Amino acid sequence: MSEIVISTPVIANLEQLFLKHNLTKKTVVLFDENTKELFGKEILTALEKQDFKWVELVIPARETSKSFRTAYRLYGELIKAEVDRSWNLLAVGGGVVGDLGGYVAASYYRGIPVIQFPTTLLAMTDSSIGGKVAINHSQGKNLIGFFHMPELVMIDPSYLKSLPEREVYAGMAEVVKYGFIADKQFLNYVNRHFKDIIAIQEPCITEAIRQSAMIKSDVVEQDFREQSGLRATLNFGHTFAHGFEKLADYRHIRHGEAVAIGMICALHLSETLGKISRNELQEGLAVLKKFKFRRGLVRKRFKDIPAETILESMHSDKKKVDKQLRYVLLEGLGKAYLHPEPLDNRIVIKAIEAAKLSVQA
Amino acid sequence: MSEIVISTPVIANLEQLFLKHNLTKKTVVLFDENTKELFGKEILTALEKQDFKWVELVIPARETSKSFRTAYRLYGELIKAEVDRSWNLLAVGGGVVGDLGGYVAASYYRGIPVIQFPTTLLAMTDSSIGGKVAINHSQGKNLIGFFHMPELVMIDPSYLKSLPEREVYAGMAEVVKYGFIADKQFLNYVNRHFKDIIAIQEPCITEAIRQSAMIKSDVVEQDFREQSGLRATLNFGHTFAHGFEKLADYRHIRHGEAVAIGMICALHLSETLGKISRNELQEGLAVLKKFKFRRGLVRKRFKDIPAETILESMHSDKKKVDKQLRYVLLEGLGKAYLHPEPLDNRIVIKAIEAAKLSVQA
Repeated sequence: MSEIVISTPVIANLEQLFLKHNLTKKTVVLFDENTKELFGKEILTALEKQDFKWVELVIPARETSKSFRTAYRLYGELIKAEVDRSWNLLAVGGGVVGDLGGYVAASYYRGIPVIQFPTTLLAMTDSSIGGKVAINHSQGKNLIGFFHMPELVMIDPSYLKSLPEREVYAGMAEVVKYGFIADKQFLNYVNRHFKDIIAIQEPCITEAIRQSAMIKSDVVEQDFREQSGLRATLNFGHTFAHGFEKLADYRHIRHGEAVAIGMICALHLSETLGKISRNELQEGLAVLKKFKFRRGLVRKRFKDIPAETILESMHSDKKKVDKQLRYVLLEGLGKAYLHPEPLDNRIVIKAIEAAKLSVQA
Repeated sequence: MSEIVISTPVIANLEQLFLKHNLTKKTVVLFDENTKELFGKEILTALEKQDFKWVELVIPARETSKSFRTAYRLYGELIKAEVDRSWNLLAVGGGVVGDLGGYVAASYYRGIPVIQFPTTLLAMTDSSIGGKVAINHSQGKNLIGFFHMPELVMIDPSYLKSLPEREVYAGMAEVVKYGFIADKQFLNYVNRHFKDIIAIQEPCITEAIRQSAMIKSDVVEQDFREQSGLRATLNFGHTFAHGFEKLADYRHIRHGEAVAIGMICALHLSETLGKISRNELQEGLAVLKKFKFRRGLVRKRFKDIPAETILESMHSDKKKVDKQLRYVLLEGLGKAYLHPEPLDNRIVIKAIEAAKLSVQA
């Protein structure tokens, strides 16, 4: 697995870290417009001081950058700059930069190493780890992509201080998810220190990132290509989330916001099937109630869409096997599993309805 | 490594072969317009008889199909047909179909298995084996791609009977190459049975394919990611060839034709550097003289371009490391190596000039 380094300031040790991982000091630095403005000067100065050669690429900070068009432009710039196989790519940003950067690195000259340098909580705890990279097709998100493990993931929690609170919450959804699927104690920790984590307070923020990254790494290591069903548990709440965010056209809702809503649905479904108790359901919902999403707008939108419509939208999910949706459920707080059989639509709709009610409460 | 099955008719055993390799009987069949016309009916009938589900895709039979545009169209068709991760892709055709099919399979839903079913001599002996898949960028060939090993390579030598002689010669260049780089005995065999192989006569044609595929597999297995320099020896003649075919704009010359010319250059360069003897040079050239390329047109074109221009064009090759060209040379017939140092331009130009003279002879 990739080494994950968490420290402040992490860029002080670039040279050492690269050397340790047999990476050359020839780096393509991929920013989005935001990370370029916020961290560009600091990072490029560090590269200069540590005697790196670099090529700089900048993309618009939006989901539509995960496109063939943008990838094609980047390939062209790399060819023009005579970047060859001896180079590597440092992706500085959130999920869009990480996914697109990983995609381009995986496919340029049949693959150059990628170093992930996530700058959002979501990317630090989830998207930068595990080697899934992708771009979007007009017919669906993340449909085109690869497994391309980063050589190294570098995390500097202090970079989160400039992150809008809404984005912190979106990342927090994944942090809570790790608790739900793999570690009851961690779930309790997050619940207890919720405010501090959201406020990017040490040591809680580093602890939350460290544990999340560790859980994700462990799962990925055990089931890299999603064969045993273990890696699929990382999608807890995501099948619902994908259906929901697709209806919202991706623009009005953050992925993490949809995941928080999706986990509420998945908790209810687990309880409906008798896999978790009424008490466990309430305990789980209590954590999710701490999320503030745009003054209730996300919750309102969720409540406004009929459960049947959400289910229909879920059916375009790429985790389908033979056109059947597969569900990740809990069989206890801290213990997820991939439900082996398809579920009756009526049961799923009932769970979504119940989730709507509990969101109201 | 992939299993390589050579038999006639190979499609009679599709079901068995797929079962053995844990492949489902849900297959995307990718044809080009030629293979669709020549083998489409036979293959789809076999799939029907053996109770497969399939989705059929057809692309124009030309190099420009190896594009983002075509890949994007194919992704769209797959999504529309609800092809999911449980499917696989059978690529029926030459290098273009194999490369594009492998590229699409490698990237669709982060990778579905690909089964290569090559129908040209070049594809049977070279491009279908070893997992290199790619598409072209407007700024260069094969710049965007991956390593995606086929689960299975199925070869039916009888399919070559409909192949134009020009294409047989183009494939023969790679066959001869395997003799040069790895097996003096095989080089002698090919030299002795040259006419029979070109005429697709058994048992020579199967033997030529079998040995070529074996040498390629062995090399790829030992150095999958081109790290030790061994896999690079498969590019014997290719650095010259790429420079030459780029000048010819890829349209007027087959890759194999350029490789045959490139090997003449590489033989001369090896001799110039004292790595092979004058006798070995002559023995090698004698085999290459047997190639008939469009009534001398390719040779004429080669002789018409100044050596300096060819060298310049070679410098856009993606095997460059730090802007230096690397050369694959022989240190004996049947023994190639990657020359560790960059070479002086004057020496390379001298070798190209010598090649021009020997092509005239």
